[in-house]
Amino acid sequence: MESRGLFITVEGGEGVGKSTNMAYMQQHLTDLGIDLLVTREPGGTALGEDIRELLLRPRQESMASGAELLLIFAARAQHLEQVVEPALANGRWVLCDRFTDATYAYQGGGRGLAVAMIRELEQLVQGELRPDYTLLLDAPVGVGMSRARERGELDRFELEQTAFFERVRASYLQLASESSGRYRVVDASKELVEVEQQLQEICAELATCWGVRRR
Amino acid sequence: MESRGLFITVEGGEGVGKSTNMAYMQQHLTDLGIDLLVTREPGGTALGEDIRELLLRPRQESMASGAELLLIFAARAQHLEQVVEPALANGRWVLCDRFTDATYAYQGGGRGLAVAMIRELEQLVQGELRPDYTLLLDAPVGVGMSRARERGELDRFELEQTAFFERVRASYLQLASESSGRYRVVDASKELVEVEQQLQEICAELATCWGVRRR
Ligand SMILES: Nc1ncnc2c1ncn2[C@@H]1O[C@H](COP(=O)(O)OP(=O)(O)OP(=O)(O)O)[C@@H](O)[C@H]1O
Ligand SMILES: Nc1ncnc2c1ncn2[C@@H]1O[C@H](COP(=O)(O)OP(=O)(O)OP(=O)(O)O)[C@@H](O)[C@H]1O
Ligand SMILES: [Mg+2]
Ligand SMILES: [Mg+2]
Repeated sequence: MESRGLFITVEGGEGVGKSTNMAYMQQHLTDLGIDLLVTREPGGTALGEDIRELLLRPRQESMASGAELLLIFAARAQHLEQVVEPALANGRWVLCDRFTDATYAYQGGGRGLAVAMIRELEQLVQGELRPDYTLLLDAPVGVGMSRARERGELDRFELEQTAFFERVRASYLQLASESSGRYRVVDASKELVEVEQQLQEICAELATCWGVRRR
Repeated sequence: MESRGLFITVEGGEGVGKSTNMAYMQQHLTDLGIDLLVTREPGGTALGEDIRELLLRPRQESMASGAELLLIFAARAQHLEQVVEPALANGRWVLCDRFTDATYAYQGGGRGLAVAMIRELEQLVQGELRPDYTLLLDAPVGVGMSRARERGELDRFELEQTAFFERVRASYLQLASESSGRYRVVDASKELVEVEQQLQEICAELATCWGVRRR
């Protein structure tokens, strides 16, 4: 029987380089012989991408924080059932751009929703499922924001104030210190080549750990 | 200070006549001098109507029951915060086409989701808010379905099997018997004029009760 795949998530604020570095990791892990599924949240399914669009589109009407939280978990429920769980069960690795830590950081830290409420929904939607490994790309808020701004039009989150992103960053760093076992924090303010250097080591480490798990 | 408005919900399966009869009630209650807001779920806000569209549109991809449930409560959170709560707080009555009883009937009874899960979300999203009065339009499944079919294209729910609608109807009748205090069951298989006769009495009763509450 195939052993279960590894569930890796990549986290961090706006424009820190998640998508850029995930593409690099995908290349590297695939070269190391790993069967990898790359996906993202909110999204990763047809329904989930429609929900993502609802979440990101700026609107006249303000969005209730509770509605935002429930939309994110709705997309997550669909993603887990249709994509993530089947892949992991088949022994494939899953590399996911944002997951529930982003919910703690953005809706908890950023919006100020009660952590207990997020935990309740996490339990309801995920049961026992948690990421095996989480990469946090950390950089001062200004660095990520100026990178994001260069890409063009801003979405509903990117339109938030600096204080919001400072709370998001602080929440991420706190999560990392609380669950240091599965977290790896990388300084994303460095030159891209330096970040890639670290990611190369991390991928090699993960592939070794994977080898151990298979035996 | 204005006293709080009355929160009335209208429930029942596909095509039993909710929209038709709500229009009649709206006319009647307004004639009785009541300041009434008429709305619906899922929907009632710009975001909520977008979520409704996601819920009703038939898709290739099957929708996870958990995702469906969370989408419904996301729309509800927005609706309560933006529309229902402010209206009730201002002393307006709210007449709503479907509410959480529909979630118990469709997602609980119809889809077989655990009632405890729905109850948890109800608590999370609504706090203490519950309808003051619920009108259940009840008719044999075949009656509503043939009325709905005559209207044209079927949505994702209307495409379900008869057994699904039988479970929905049974759940509604059970809810009505469990909370008989706030429920009023009307036989919606009768001729429209007969249904309207009963609604007229109900509206008069409600207006009287409202008078009492205001004093
Ligand atoms: N270490 C780096 N140094 C300089 N520029 C970088 C670095 N990493 C990424 N970038 C650039 O910053 C921009 C944003 O990167 P990217 O889209 O990968 O961020 P992201 O974290 O995925 O953003 P989002 O949160 O919006 O999804 C891109 O133009 C990318 O080329
Ligand atoms: N008592 C009745 N007798 C005969 N026809 C009726 C009766 N009530 C409603 N109808 C007709 O049945 C059709 C469905 O009614 P309506 O749209 O009001 O149902 P609904 O419960 O709102 O449906 P849905 O669940 O799809 O919103 C309409 O064409 C309406 O005119
Ligand atoms: Mg990205
Ligand atoms: Mg209707």
